[in-house]
Amino acid sequence: MARSSYDTDLDKNPANYQPLTPLTFLERAADVYPDRVAIVHGALRRTYREFHARARRLASALEALGVGEGDTVAVMLGNTPAMLECHYGVPMTGAVLNTLNTRLDPAILAFSLDHGEAKVVIADREFSRVMAQALAAAKVKPVVVDYDDPEYAGPGERIGSMEYEALLASGTEDHVRRFPRDEWDAIALNYTSGTTGNPKGVVYHHRGAALLATGNIVTCGMGKHPVYLWTLPMFHCNGWCFPWSISAVAGTHVCLRQVRARAIFDAIADHGVTHLCGAPIIMSTLLNAPEAEKRMLPRVVEFFTAAAPPPEAVLAEMKAAGFNVTHLYGLTETYGPSVVNDWNADWDALDSAGQAAKKARQGVRYLALDGLDVLDPATMRPVPADGETLGEVMMRGNVVMKGYLKNPGATREAFAGGWFHSGDLGVKHPDGYIQLKDRSKDIIISGGENISSIEVEDALFKHPAVQAAAVVAKPDEKWGETPCAFVELKPGHAATADELAAWCRQHLAGFKCPRHFVFAELPKTSTGKIQKFRLREMALAV
Amino acid sequence: MARSSYDTDLDKNPANYQPLTPLTFLERAADVYPDRVAIVHGALRRTYREFHARARRLASALEALGVGEGDTVAVMLGNTPAMLECHYGVPMTGAVLNTLNTRLDPAILAFSLDHGEAKVVIADREFSRVMAQALAAAKVKPVVVDYDDPEYAGPGERIGSMEYEALLASGTEDHVRRFPRDEWDAIALNYTSGTTGNPKGVVYHHRGAALLATGNIVTCGMGKHPVYLWTLPMFHCNGWCFPWSISAVAGTHVCLRQVRARAIFDAIADHGVTHLCGAPIIMSTLLNAPEAEKRMLPRVVEFFTAAAPPPEAVLAEMKAAGFNVTHLYGLTETYGPSVVNDWNADWDALDSAGQAAKKARQGVRYLALDGLDVLDPATMRPVPADGETLGEVMMRGNVVMKGYLKNPGATREAFAGGWFHSGDLGVKHPDGYIQLKDRSKDIIISGGENISSIEVEDALFKHPAVQAAAVVAKPDEKWGETPCAFVELKPGHAATADELAAWCRQHLAGFKCPRHFVFAELPKTSTGKIQKFRLREMALAV
Repeated sequence: MARSSYDTDLDKNPANYQPLTPLTFLERAADVYPDRVAIVHGALRRTYREFHARARRLASALEALGVGEGDTVAVMLGNTPAMLECHYGVPMTGAVLNTLNTRLDPAILAFSLDHGEAKVVIADREFSRVMAQALAAAKVKPVVVDYDDPEYAGPGERIGSMEYEALLASGTEDHVRRFPRDEWDAIALNYTSGTTGNPKGVVYHHRGAALLATGNIVTCGMGKHPVYLWTLPMFHCNGWCFPWSISAVAGTHVCLRQVRARAIFDAIADHGVTHLCGAPIIMSTLLNAPEAEKRMLPRVVEFFTAAAPPPEAVLAEMKAAGFNVTHLYGLTETYGPSVVNDWNADWDALDSAGQAAKKARQGVRYLALDGLDVLDPATMRPVPADGETLGEVMMRGNVVMKGYLKNPGATREAFAGGWFHSGDLGVKHPDGYIQLKDRSKDIIISGGENISSIEVEDALFKHPAVQAAAVVAKPDEKWGETPCAFVELKPGHAATADELAAWCRQHLAGFKCPRHFVFAELPKTSTGKIQKFRLREMALAV
Repeated sequence: MARSSYDTDLDKNPANYQPLTPLTFLERAADVYPDRVAIVHGALRRTYREFHARARRLASALEALGVGEGDTVAVMLGNTPAMLECHYGVPMTGAVLNTLNTRLDPAILAFSLDHGEAKVVIADREFSRVMAQALAAAKVKPVVVDYDDPEYAGPGERIGSMEYEALLASGTEDHVRRFPRDEWDAIALNYTSGTTGNPKGVVYHHRGAALLATGNIVTCGMGKHPVYLWTLPMFHCNGWCFPWSISAVAGTHVCLRQVRARAIFDAIADHGVTHLCGAPIIMSTLLNAPEAEKRMLPRVVEFFTAAAPPPEAVLAEMKAAGFNVTHLYGLTETYGPSVVNDWNADWDALDSAGQAAKKARQGVRYLALDGLDVLDPATMRPVPADGETLGEVMMRGNVVMKGYLKNPGATREAFAGGWFHSGDLGVKHPDGYIQLKDRSKDIIISGGENISSIEVEDALFKHPAVQAAAVVAKPDEKWGETPCAFVELKPGHAATADELAAWCRQHLAGFKCPRHFVFAELPKTSTGKIQKFRLREMALAV
């Protein structure tokens, strides 16, 4: 019903409305910059004309295999040209791209293939063994396509009924992509790496992918023609949507199969890399590289990191090494990063510790995210912005997932009260920046007092001999729980449990000090996160 | 009806869907950079906290006057802080902002007020005389608010029932803005300056405004914290949406009541301006300024121009003066610019004439515009990309207007065949860049041959004595029409009609050469466009 003249005879029509989608970004790059290098991979150079033509070939070949709207194409690929092509070619058919985590075991992969009802699987030869096992265990029987990357010389048999290049050759570059019928249509499916229970299938839509992809550009202040190095796995939240962002600004993707210091430094120096993203582990890799592997950076390189706040020492070393580090935060459910530690020029005047303290905060919402707050989940009211009161970090807006596939219960729970519940505990500072304190399940409750494991870890991190630390709850008859610390020492450094205990007493309230110290390598998930559930098991035995 | 699992139990809800709107951009800037200077106006500095607070005061005060969803607030304002506040405060109430062209006469203004059903009018004291006449002639009786800008010391009486600052003082900054119910809801109303007949009311919606505002950032490669100088009138297509763009990147607006060379150079040097937009006349103003008024630019300044292709000599002089000129193109119906002469680095190797020829082309679509093509309006098929075949430039996508207010006939005509018909004639080059050749009605048909008035004007422009030239059709018994040239000479230069005729014969096919030359100042519209309909009248008398 028309509410005013502004709603009368002013309807949507094909001239003034198109569903938002990142697929048009590649079309535009190919139209405007056909000869510009879109992809670098070893000795291979592909222009935007070629990239677009190959994506269309892929789409038409997939359609010939019967792939269409609402179907799932699962891919087990590293950061290769094929992975980039799949980010366009698969959704061009109306199908949904399911990027599999290449570090998972066959049982979980089989679960994902079945749950997502994969119709086609494209797998790099490097992962053929685990994929063969996953396919044998799965109930679905997808068409399997091998991707035999010339840059990969290691072991691995072909397991599919055809090779990727033959598939493309069977297609045509005259393929006319379908616009999504609705921008709410799914574009990607990403399974969480869930530490317990079955993974959940996070569904992204075209609207959110387009908005986060351009949001990355606005938030990162990315100009035209960036040179982007792929250290972040593209299977992880679709590489934070950068496979789509880079087309929007006609940049160059530099692929990388192996994330090693020498390869990263070489790529940066040889290709003039301007931007890269990665977990904190990438920073350590770069900083701890042998001098012989390091190369002079051609300019200041923008490094976007997430997962854990960058420690002060690392920030200082990264700066000295020529990187400008920006701290992002997000979840699979928010298309990757949707929160940014937006730097305020006033903070340049702070000393290095002061700057690191500012940079450790997760920050503020992306322009593309409408709401970010720390709420009391019981009352759904914001906590005071005092930097102290704990609440749950929640988001709302267009870059929050469509929901969990075939899991209405989990979807309802995640969206209860009109906000997405991140499961992360945090505080809001007086300036509105949020800071994580813990995952809900990582909080330690000792004698009725909440202990933030992050706070204890921060204290341990400041000890000069500590390379990494993780603190978990250990059940205790008297206190309920007590903190138990797992510590990795720096090579060539030594520290005893007594020394660390004394250090903690200096830096923390007594009840927060770990009662136990374990020196061990920390178990990590396939995406580099520390597996606290494993540590909790280990703590039982201490 | 669900089409697959991807459409089942995965609906929109408040956690994962918000209508797109540029209003959130100011909220974010005020949240993240509250103390950053948002507005410079003479000696005045306003932070983002103040800008946002004042916009909310305005919204709450307007609501107290009864303004709400679907109402129109018309403003007669220069490039002042109040104009920026209205771009947020008015739509925060759900109402529609109608920016009036301050150079129009009372009769047309009265028409707009009546047609738009203005409920409130906010008028700068400078325009009180013409507004008083317009209001007297109008049938509507809006509440009239005077804006008495301290930077304006000229004549003009107050004509309203209250002053703008008093209005704001009556409001509260605790106002909670309404999200638009639907992103398709109207945000602005812009009347075309129609050379014949009544102006048409172009309606913009929140979705398009948000997308073009971020599109400006992506297309212009605008980083964080630009300093933007207001030489382009904000009443013109909402200042090409830059009042919203600048908030998205927490930049600084430098207001300017009077577009004069000294004021522009002073603003650039004093405030470190990084970007400005303006018609080609601004470039002439800058280049022809007395040396005493010129100032050293602190850095290369990005200058975005539209309306006419920048001539080679002007481009070279602008470059020498420290400006990087980008040529944009668009119409009121496309939220201002939606086409950009995206520069290809290969062209840097061309000589100055070659570069100017590339830069004279209107270019390619904005990332935010889904389709741009040159079509044969009879068949709606694209013309060949040969740089020669004339067709009509057409656009489609999310940054095309909602339609013309209360004018379903004109709306239907504009959108016929699923494209917006620009009314501009152009060609498509082999690389896909479009170039305007003429408005449909500006083409001259002589002996059955089409003559592009732009081509003839270009030839005249190259003559060293010619400052400006416009060519129109003069009815001719034998040929149907012949070209008639109107020429402005550069100060201190001379040329006779015979000299120019000889020049044209050297540069053009004989049938394209003007039969008549008139030396006169060219009549311009209020937005600086040459009024060809006046010239056609004058040509009758030649």
